[in-house]
Amino acid sequence: MNRKVSLKDIAQRVGVSTTLVSYVLNNQKENRIKKEVAQKIREVAQELNYRTNQIAKSLKTRKTATLGLIVADIANPFSSSLARIIEDEASRHDYTVIFGSSDENPQKSRKLIDTLLKRQVDGLIIAPPQEAESQIADLQRQHVPFVLIDRYFPDLKTSYVALDNCAVAYSAVDHLIAQGYRRIGLITLQSSLYHMNERKRGYLASLKDHSLTLDKSWLKEVPEEQVKAETEKAIGDLLAGPQPVEALFFTNNTVALHGLKHIQSLRLHVPDDLAIVCFDETDALDLFSTPVTCIRQPLREIGQQATKILLENIDKTSKITQVNLQAELVIRQSTAQAVQRLVH
Amino acid sequence: MNRKVSLKDIAQRVGVSTTLVSYVLNNQKENRIKKEVAQKIREVAQELNYRTNQIAKSLKTRKTATLGLIVADIANPFSSSLARIIEDEASRHDYTVIFGSSDENPQKSRKLIDTLLKRQVDGLIIAPPQEAESQIADLQRQHVPFVLIDRYFPDLKTSYVALDNCAVAYSAVDHLIAQGYRRIGLITLQSSLYHMNERKRGYLASLKDHSLTLDKSWLKEVPEEQVKAETEKAIGDLLAGPQPVEALFFTNNTVALHGLKHIQSLRLHVPDDLAIVCFDETDALDLFSTPVTCIRQPLREIGQQATKILLENIDKTSKITQVNLQAELVIRQSTAQAVQRLVH
Repeated sequence: MNRKVSLKDIAQRVGVSTTLVSYVLNNQKENRIKKEVAQKIREVAQELNYRTNQIAKSLKTRKTATLGLIVADIANPFSSSLARIIEDEASRHDYTVIFGSSDENPQKSRKLIDTLLKRQVDGLIIAPPQEAESQIADLQRQHVPFVLIDRYFPDLKTSYVALDNCAVAYSAVDHLIAQGYRRIGLITLQSSLYHMNERKRGYLASLKDHSLTLDKSWLKEVPEEQVKAETEKAIGDLLAGPQPVEALFFTNNTVALHGLKHIQSLRLHVPDDLAIVCFDETDALDLFSTPVTCIRQPLREIGQQATKILLENIDKTSKITQVNLQAELVIRQSTAQAVQRLVH
Repeated sequence: MNRKVSLKDIAQRVGVSTTLVSYVLNNQKENRIKKEVAQKIREVAQELNYRTNQIAKSLKTRKTATLGLIVADIANPFSSSLARIIEDEASRHDYTVIFGSSDENPQKSRKLIDTLLKRQVDGLIIAPPQEAESQIADLQRQHVPFVLIDRYFPDLKTSYVALDNCAVAYSAVDHLIAQGYRRIGLITLQSSLYHMNERKRGYLASLKDHSLTLDKSWLKEVPEEQVKAETEKAIGDLLAGPQPVEALFFTNNTVALHGLKHIQSLRLHVPDDLAIVCFDETDALDLFSTPVTCIRQPLREIGQQATKILLENIDKTSKITQVNLQAELVIRQSTAQAVQRLVH
């Protein structure tokens, strides 16, 4: 049982007024209070393990020094690495972080936002799921300070920190083409989210700019709910028939993980049988038999910038800050020059 | 700017007293208030986006419906998977979770505990770092409800949910011996923590029970700060000389990850050149060329039990509950029967 020590408890123990205790512990009116009395009050406070009640304080200041963080799933390495960076940044400014996972579900995200606001967080950092546009618009109308990360809604004028997803997807496909690959498949999550569409757009734009005809069956969108089975099926489809794809671009770390496991179980040789590019640099990639070319997101910068923008918005008048960061294509063995092939 | 709407704002807008607004929004004295007035108050509250102030409420109830969670590092998959489970459990009971990473540093952990208590969390779930015994004893003296997870201090009588680490380490080494391996190395983190010592104890006990002489140089303890370089060096040492080890037991997921990467870069064949057992089942293991035998911790049960015990302690008189769970040895290809070897 956590019976918290109050100013009154200390006052009674010392035999002074509660007001006097409050003055001493808040370092007010120091020169009007006897040193011995102040000393005694501090001793008793320590003895009783008195802690400043941040809640009482926050009612006065209307600040709780707490940030709310909504990620897709804290168990995904992208989310947890970002959470770690935001935690560190927030802590440097004496803020703590309350977090929740939306599971890409707009109902869950709405409930989370509501819960966090009831806890009077000073602001929110949100990776919004699909169909969350109206909740974000609501926050804006209510003048809640917030920053979107990873995803945003182009029709809403909000602060965000995100990648130029189209550009980096373009450069990944560009690289595959430069390495001699022509039949390039893409496996992505079925999603209406802007950032996922941008990755698709980059892929299509690169093929087009190199005048490569696109076989529409090369573009596979797998539903989140059956991501493992559907990724495996997509790979099977892309490798079947007389003209299998020569290279694969996974635009999400979950799809990549299941995809690579399946490629391994099929005993395909990367890159000779199939070249690979993945979105996100995760620990798992390090143990794949061939070092994997991947898109490294600037996680530290995303987390730091988002925290910085949010803290500014909490302190001052709201200002919209939109940051588009560049991601890096890290080239490894999985996209080595294509061996000379028979022209089909 | 987040100017929060108060009861007074609503009262002024409707032209009634603040008390009346409070009655209506807290569903009190319903039959004494005119329906039309109550209706009007609710409409204005909604219009102004009034949210119950949980903070004001918590000053009355002395409850915040918030749990504090201290993990070693939220970016480690063990911590983040556990955090996800605790988040889900807490949410089922309308609790939110504030978290922090201690980085295995007792100063940081003390500061985190202090910060979380200032935020008036109702209780704490803590994976304590080394040398944190005195902080945990302090919490106990202050009657703060808490549960330790993963690690605990055998000299302190506190609630905890942990593994029987010695038993599962014993069974892992037992399995290696049954498969025909005799020279078995162990790589662990340098740590005074009880759970890490228990894993070492299980290893030594199994060797002893099988009357295998232990070469002390087979037991490598690497410092956390240089975990990559030191793990690589340890593997080099264990494989050098005329009598290299035939099997390796990694007692921690970070050591395992760096170790497997190095084994891969050395192009060793698992299990023919070296058999492997790892602590923790992480996604990364799935992409290693040989399926890896590992110790699967019952994460869901750890998270659920810890949350349950904590919520009970918050609600009722404190009761010490100590849970020791069994972990499962998941046997895969990396510990297949040793091929017939020359007797050295």
